[in-house]
Amino acid sequence: MKIRRADRLVDMTHYLLEHPRELVSLNFFAERYETAKSSISEDLAIVRRVYKTRGTGDLKTYPGAAGGVYYTPLMGQEEAEDFVSGIIKAVSDDTRVLPGGYVYLSDLLGRPDVLRQTGRLLTTQYADKEIDAVMTAATKGIPLAQAVANELNVPFVIVRDDAKVTEGSMISVNYLTGSSKRVEKMALSKRSLRSGARVLIVDDFMKAGGTVQGMQTLVREFGGEVVGTAVFAEGRSNVRLIEDYTSLLHIDTSLDGAEAIKVSDGNYLERIYKK
Amino acid sequence: MKIRRADRLVDMTHYLLEHPRELVSLNFFAERYETAKSSISEDLAIVRRVYKTRGTGDLKTYPGAAGGVYYTPLMGQEEAEDFVSGIIKAVSDDTRVLPGGYVYLSDLLGRPDVLRQTGRLLTTQYADKEIDAVMTAATKGIPLAQAVANELNVPFVIVRDDAKVTEGSMISVNYLTGSSKRVEKMALSKRSLRSGARVLIVDDFMKAGGTVQGMQTLVREFGGEVVGTAVFAEGRSNVRLIEDYTSLLHIDTSLDGAEAIKVSDGNYLERIYKK
Repeated sequence: MKIRRADRLVDMTHYLLEHPRELVSLNFFAERYETAKSSISEDLAIVRRVYKTRGTGDLKTYPGAAGGVYYTPLMGQEEAEDFVSGIIKAVSDDTRVLPGGYVYLSDLLGRPDVLRQTGRLLTTQYADKEIDAVMTAATKGIPLAQAVANELNVPFVIVRDDAKVTEGSMISVNYLTGSSKRVEKMALSKRSLRSGARVLIVDDFMKAGGTVQGMQTLVREFGGEVVGTAVFAEGRSNVRLIEDYTSLLHIDTSLDGAEAIKVSDGNYLERIYKK
Repeated sequence: MKIRRADRLVDMTHYLLEHPRELVSLNFFAERYETAKSSISEDLAIVRRVYKTRGTGDLKTYPGAAGGVYYTPLMGQEEAEDFVSGIIKAVSDDTRVLPGGYVYLSDLLGRPDVLRQTGRLLTTQYADKEIDAVMTAATKGIPLAQAVANELNVPFVIVRDDAKVTEGSMISVNYLTGSSKRVEKMALSKRSLRSGARVLIVDDFMKAGGTVQGMQTLVREFGGEVVGTAVFAEGRSNVRLIEDYTSLLHIDTSLDGAEAIKVSDGNYLERIYKK
């Protein structure tokens, strides 16, 4: 049964949102809706126009037999600034500061709306890059890795500090924590990453960057390549082992005086929007 | 600027997908598109028709000043059976069996497409139930909890076996593992769950159900209510501490003979589709 344009647009929007960064052939849609490819092209022009206006994504069409349509989720700078300033406001709360200067962020990192937007924002930087997998370290980086992987439509892998019976053979590396200079161990299941994989490293919080550096070592140990590093928040640190990273927030709790916590923009504007 | 119907449909579909189980007022859309509410109602009728045809969701409209539109993601039985049989095929692989009869599932639980569909399938059972939070136990349940929470549009909370410096004050309970009858401890940050919260418990794998039982105790300790329990896979167990749960898969690795692993449907058909 031939399907009307209005219905096609609803279904097509839904389908593309669930298949980001994936080439979908026009034939696929033509058969799904029993409609000529020329009509599908017109439909896609409408979807593209809406995404462009809202700044929430890009739709590229590739002509030819091997061609199709490719949807990339994006976040425009204005939406990003609104989102991050909302997060800064939420984190700027003295009661979040825990003994040792740690910051309670688990509520935010458990909110689907925050995670969805963080995922879309952090992947914007890699719109034109090929990425095969997202890597994070257990436990608190997992929700962010999943959110980013969801927008990139690639798997995510979880690095652990111990060998679990459910992970099979693992490859482990030692790394130096940046702050206390302790030697720690992290491990990843052997079957979780193929040789040559292009990996985006994601974590919740970075101070000196020891954990991130450990993950970089691990990626190389698997014969892979680090495409980039993105963190939700960076803290103040005298040592910085990692220079090439993107952060949404900068959080400082090692303050003298009355303020217990000071939260500001991370480097995302410069890194993602070249501002 | 008034926006055309075609464009409204694309944007509306996108918006509703990102705001499931949330009452959106018709005024919101009327203002967003500078369009009469009667036109918005017609748009929504189209969206509803497409979701109904595809079986991917339900759109309810509530009249009156306090009314609006409410989108519930759903998975129809046919799509669910297709999805689960694909998973069964993927898991039915001798090389997944690890020493001790454990099963490697981390690849599947790190795939966005699998997680998205699992989330939509598992929440279908709770379409008419109010849920305030999803709870899981670190580490392997986290991706599933996030996927389910994403469809329910509620936060998820992570129970841990140790107190982390980033969690603040925690409430802990002891629980008995079902298989080995060891006494273990699990803890949840005090500020992560409010009293009276209706909680859906989600986990990756359940054998006797000791961990799930521990989480139930923890929910009650917070003054909350357990709405249900959903697991990706259940294993064979001589003891079963939990009777009220939904599982997608049943995995058996404690087999005599040539087969190393036997995977079949869990109880989801009966539990979700009353088959």
